[in-house]
Amino acid sequence: MSQSRLIEIEQDILGKNDRYAAVNRRRFEAHGVLALNLLSSPGSGKTTLLCRTIAMRPNDLPVYVIEGDQQTSADAERIRAAGAPAIQINTGKGCHLDAHMVGHAVEHLVPVAGSVLFIENVGNLVCPAAFDLGEAHKVVILSVTEGEDKPLKYPDMFAAADLVLINKVDLLPHLEFDVDLAIANARRIKRGLRAIRVSARTGEGMADWLAWIEGACMMAGAGRVRAEA
Amino acid sequence: MSQSRLIEIEQDILGKNDRYAAVNRRRFEAHGVLALNLLSSPGSGKTTLLCRTIAMRPNDLPVYVIEGDQQTSADAERIRAAGAPAIQINTGKGCHLDAHMVGHAVEHLVPVAGSVLFIENVGNLVCPAAFDLGEAHKVVILSVTEGEDKPLKYPDMFAAADLVLINKVDLLPHLEFDVDLAIANARRIKRGLRAIRVSARTGEGMADWLAWIEGACMMAGAGRVRAEA
Repeated sequence: MSQSRLIEIEQDILGKNDRYAAVNRRRFEAHGVLALNLLSSPGSGKTTLLCRTIAMRPNDLPVYVIEGDQQTSADAERIRAAGAPAIQINTGKGCHLDAHMVGHAVEHLVPVAGSVLFIENVGNLVCPAAFDLGEAHKVVILSVTEGEDKPLKYPDMFAAADLVLINKVDLLPHLEFDVDLAIANARRIKRGLRAIRVSARTGEGMADWLAWIEGACMMAGAGRVRAEA
Repeated sequence: MSQSRLIEIEQDILGKNDRYAAVNRRRFEAHGVLALNLLSSPGSGKTTLLCRTIAMRPNDLPVYVIEGDQQTSADAERIRAAGAPAIQINTGKGCHLDAHMVGHAVEHLVPVAGSVLFIENVGNLVCPAAFDLGEAHKVVILSVTEGEDKPLKYPDMFAAADLVLINKVDLLPHLEFDVDLAIANARRIKRGLRAIRVSARTGEGMADWLAWIEGACMMAGAGRVRAEA
């Protein structure tokens, strides 16, 4: 198969995904739902961070979660135990969620106006960067155990993000990890990229992350709907 | 595009890769080179582990390294500084190494008989599992910061591996991570999977890992060639 044929096929797949993503985005905007696509390596602590976010969120903020994994429904179960409706998508051989899968999950979840929909993607710093799900923002989670060089080695992911959460900062005393360098590297890929240091374990930085979500809700119209409700 | 057409294309790509992998494998076997395909999430500590392996290896064991990353040649530079010839492959948008890339890199490296060729794949627990590079063994590195559930959530990778290295065990006192549970989960995916606990930082377990390599050399004929040299 020629290279040009391969590229054409890739464009077909991405084009089809983008059409589904546009439908999702219109639906989210029309209903005042803030959709956030959470992306990271496996094991960066996305699910634990979400559980803590659910526990610490304002009482009047409805939260829904779509969980993506190759296998198991363990994460959706953790989210439900933390107090939010959740749907698990198993991608099988697939390395990322796509907009079509998310559209179906949303039909089941039916997030109310003024809510936040977290989409926890398959743990993968490469492939999910190329697939728009219709979200308002991509948020990358980088754990301090992973090394400061990750933004340079996986630039597409950081270029696509509107926020990077530097997670597990409670472990910093036990590591040689330079948070400032990691953030500087991320900003070499995307100038001015917003960064927040958090620990889902100790709660450090969670107030800043919740404030960022609140601001994004306002921008997405989700805050306005809630305030009027 | 229909699903069956997509599957056919995927099979074309995998079929082509497998033909290149078979060529690589014959070459490795003919020359008594032990090729190991190292796989993990981004940030599991593969490169640090390799640097330590190079430093601690027997004096008479030649080592070569192929480094895969989306961008940067930082890892190949680290390996050369540690004392082994290395070639960096940048995959750009690509999420894994393929056998064709590895074949070209081997033409440049020209590993001698009785040597070990480490192929450090792109950090990704999903896609590289499907791509045979012609290696003798796939080795998965799982860091103790990543969670015990990873083998269940990314089963294809663990099913394809002949060894799992549980890395960064020096951090265990600061984490809630159950090593026995992680290994048990890996063995639910692949019965009898060999597991070694290591710390590239402290050197713990490195002797066991080097002994495993020595055994694999013997099985690959690489040990025999060296002993006769």
